[in-house]
Amino acid sequence: MYGVTTLFHYPNGKKANVTKTTKGEGISKQSSNSQTYANRGMNLETLLNETNEFYRIHQRAVIHKKPTPLQIVKVDYPKRSAAKVTEAYFKQASTTDYNGVYRGRYIDFEAKETNNKTSFPLGNFHDHQIAHMRECERHGGICFVIIRFSRYNTQYVLTTEQLVQWWEQRLTGRKSIPLSFIEKEAIEVPTRALPSIDYLTVLDQWLD
Amino acid sequence: MYGVTTLFHYPNGKKANVTKTTKGEGISKQSSNSQTYANRGMNLETLLNETNEFYRIHQRAVIHKKPTPLQIVKVDYPKRSAAKVTEAYFKQASTTDYNGVYRGRYIDFEAKETNNKTSFPLGNFHDHQIAHMRECERHGGICFVIIRFSRYNTQYVLTTEQLVQWWEQRLTGRKSIPLSFIEKEAIEVPTRALPSIDYLTVLDQWLD
Repeated sequence: MYGVTTLFHYPNGKKANVTKTTKGEGISKQSSNSQTYANRGMNLETLLNETNEFYRIHQRAVIHKKPTPLQIVKVDYPKRSAAKVTEAYFKQASTTDYNGVYRGRYIDFEAKETNNKTSFPLGNFHDHQIAHMRECERHGGICFVIIRFSRYNTQYVLTTEQLVQWWEQRLTGRKSIPLSFIEKEAIEVPTRALPSIDYLTVLDQWLD
Repeated sequence: MYGVTTLFHYPNGKKANVTKTTKGEGISKQSSNSQTYANRGMNLETLLNETNEFYRIHQRAVIHKKPTPLQIVKVDYPKRSAAKVTEAYFKQASTTDYNGVYRGRYIDFEAKETNNKTSFPLGNFHDHQIAHMRECERHGGICFVIIRFSRYNTQYVLTTEQLVQWWEQRLTGRKSIPLSFIEKEAIEVPTRALPSIDYLTVLDQWLD
């Protein structure tokens, strides 16, 4: 339900940017620029919801974002109208945000973005999420993180193993993953029109 | 996180019942009764949360209930305390409530219970959920529903196909699944101490 809403309610960064970058220019310019400017300024959740909805409609995969976990404290039941939650608090998630099925496999990932220029802060993840990813992998699931550098409009897929190697030394060593490591070791996910963040192409490399 | 909380915060129906049914009776009576009275009066969500937590801790599977989807309208950010949601509404879920990974496979199910005596009302399910189950199966996921008859303290696993055959005729035919069909065609899930509702044993029959 929310997937469909997302697709139509959120501003489509790609379309807006194509108009902007091609003003008075030819079609060849338009397509060569679309790789660079598409999705700039869109947040990662919006891009992934669009992507997942695209995958679902085109029958490539069924992957959904989980709802935000809330601790509900008070609910009003007014006569003749919908129940209204009047007191609730955000809870820390016990799992990652996204999961689903692709090519018969269980897919599970977390997605985070940063405005940083040279590294990705590990504070974006929680112990529970790392533990959850390791557990799922133990049962044959495919787990990873998608991290996005908003300034550069680039995103990468990191394996659980790659994340864990930095996570485990964070208390004694550095608290972020250097972009140089990410550029060298992680797989970049191309920015497209649609699917905006085509991460399944990365999984195909692993599955084939 | 909520899994662990669940295990310790919810009343444990099994323990309470063992005490009750064995008052003044021998140990053999206790164990012969545990099949019948265990879990009576517990709701299905509690039983499944316990079961999933048991599976997770014993490294049999990683399966979680998704958080309840809410449309958040207003959030207060009081100084020096946690953000407080002051207006939110329940949304219809676009997927089923439970999913995860077991023996490398994607598992996806919905769980519902009824107080009815002779049939299970189809009104407990939504179009979106049925569509979601069919989509996941198309990609190789294992989808089903667990339905519980609270009065009898019994529950069954129905395949997507079995559910769909009743779902598709509900607008012109009957609006519930007869218990007689369920008893004959569905697989009963034994009620135990822990895991309370051991549905993975049913999946094992399919996977082997």
